Amino acid sequence: MSVVIDGLQYANWSEKIFRQMRAGGVDAVHVTITYHENFRETVLNIEAWNRWFERFPELILQGFSAEDINVARETGRTAIFFGSQNPSCIEDDIGLVEVLHRLGLRFMQLTYNNQSLLATGCYEADDTGLTRMGREVVAEMNRVGLVVDMSHSGERSTLEAIKHSTRPIAITHANPASWHPARRNKSDRVLDALAASGGMLGFSLYPHHLQNGSECTVNGFCEMIARTVERMGVERVGIGSDLCQDQPDSVVDWMRSGRWTKTVDFGEGSAADPGFPPMPQWFGGNEDFGNIAVGLRSVGLSEAEVAAIMGGNWQRFFADAFAPQGQAR
Amino acid sequence: MSVVIDGLQYANWSEKIFRQMRAGGVDAVHVTITYHENFRETVLNIEAWNRWFERFPELILQGFSAEDINVARETGRTAIFFGSQNPSCIEDDIGLVEVLHRLGLRFMQLTYNNQSLLATGCYEADDTGLTRMGREVVAEMNRVGLVVDMSHSGERSTLEAIKHSTRPIAITHANPASWHPARRNKSDRVLDALAASGGMLGFSLYPHHLQNGSECTVNGFCEMIARTVERMGVERVGIGSDLCQDQPDSVVDWMRSGRWTKTVDFGEGSAADPGFPPMPQWFGGNEDFGNIAVGLRSVGLSEAEVAAIMGGNWQRFFADAFAPQGQAR
Repeated sequence: MSVVIDGLQYANWSEKIFRQMRAGGVDAVHVTITYHENFRETVLNIEAWNRWFERFPELILQGFSAEDINVARETGRTAIFFGSQNPSCIEDDIGLVEVLHRLGLRFMQLTYNNQSLLATGCYEADDTGLTRMGREVVAEMNRVGLVVDMSHSGERSTLEAIKHSTRPIAITHANPASWHPARRNKSDRVLDALAASGGMLGFSLYPHHLQNGSECTVNGFCEMIARTVERMGVERVGIGSDLCQDQPDSVVDWMRSGRWTKTVDFGEGSAADPGFPPMPQWFGGNEDFGNIAVGLRSVGLSEAEVAAIMGGNWQRFFADAFAPQGQAR
Repeated sequence: MSVVIDGLQYANWSEKIFRQMRAGGVDAVHVTITYHENFRETVLNIEAWNRWFERFPELILQGFSAEDINVARETGRTAIFFGSQNPSCIEDDIGLVEVLHRLGLRFMQLTYNNQSLLATGCYEADDTGLTRMGREVVAEMNRVGLVVDMSHSGERSTLEAIKHSTRPIAITHANPASWHPARRNKSDRVLDALAASGGMLGFSLYPHHLQNGSECTVNGFCEMIARTVERMGVERVGIGSDLCQDQPDSVVDWMRSGRWTKTVDFGEGSAADPGFPPMPQWFGGNEDFGNIAVGLRSVGLSEAEVAAIMGGNWQRFFADAFAPQGQAR
């Protein structure tokens, strides 16, 4: 069976989910370990993961390099790669980029939804692009092998990150805005620049990013992927499910509002619909990746193309992206 | 040339000292990165080291495993292994043991001179041995491959650490009290227990630990080593110079008084002699390790014994001690 890699999840982790990953044949997952946490709080989240790794060594292992995906496959486990959805984890200290890379951080978004110290989030009215510190941090991320992720960033910031970064970047979880014009989905201009630079787009299954939301069909989702493959090239895309399995609604509140507001920010939701939206019935969790592969075949993609999209592309990207600059894979 | 490893230094690091390490043929050094610093401050010290590694890649590299000593020798550099002289860096959080090991910490003293959360320092009037947390942390250090160092601890605490630890421990920088009865030097009972458990003693060149202080002769120092070899076995000893090259006296004040007192604690010094004592003329810095090797030969030790003491023993100990429990070298 070909490799299956998910470009983003933020589940309420449990033995049940780790076993579902095995049932779904998931070889590697980029997991969010922090939204608004500062450095010390991020380290506490890493400590919690260390306890999972210690408790379930037969199900999961921490991934540091693409080679760890092979180790996971050979031993029937899932490799867990850490990422941050916000640069709050480096506070105002560029030295923490290398420290967090050493601890296993492999992706960091330059922003969540708001302006950060580094760039502008997609919910701000004005996007002023990379900040002074943003340019320095991107160069440092390039040096150590920490992937720039612009999933939640504004258009100008994203284009500047693609241009300024000397290594390909990723948009780990979003879809084309031409298919579903959500604020979090990406314009053709961004997708073209991402593809031309050798970057990666992970297709999101979060209902707010889907045409018809929770009612989106697997065929509609896979048709969208086929169209995006035509635009970006089959090597430039993968899955980034944005799966928040078993999370209570208090977590989506934390994701959106953090500690930056005393009121409630509804983000992609609304006062009438503040919680996590229900997932499409064909993708409820980690055991359902096979449904996507079946859907991709049924829209006419070849077996080689399906394998690339389901994980082969992320595996190649991980191999190129995670090593310090100038260091061989 | 055989391997040269120093079991402890805390220099005022500079390009000059890194070049002296090369001139002295020093292949690896356990460097103190923290005395009284908390976790975040320790990370700042690691960040400072990361900048040294980035600036002088032709002189130094960070050591994570004993294999890195071979890399250093093959490329004409010195491998730097991190250690802490106090458990303040893990605060009250056992999860930080694994986090700091991941960042490269390879030695941690359970105490500096005072009572810690883990054990009792050698300047306390009563030594109550390992605390409840101390026993938990020793087990966790054993699990991840972080060496228990009892250089500054009291006798009971040291004996209990030797007994409780499932892996050999180290006293990285001290001498036999029978030779020079300083409070920091170790009783025959401790040395015997250390040797029987497969641990290591690093001989200190800090003048307060030397017979006749700064006037100690190289012959006197090496005679003491020869007698200790007879007692402990030649495999159980190495050098742990405690070299504090180019440090201003404000640093010894920080080492002794930290933030635990508002007055001044003179430690091994005195009000009349509060600063760093002058080093013996035959060991002023990193270029002088050859003088010790010459001295060891002149007191009758064989070439193989000298090689073991100057670095071979530490290299073997590092290989056994730094990997997670159950993991092959």
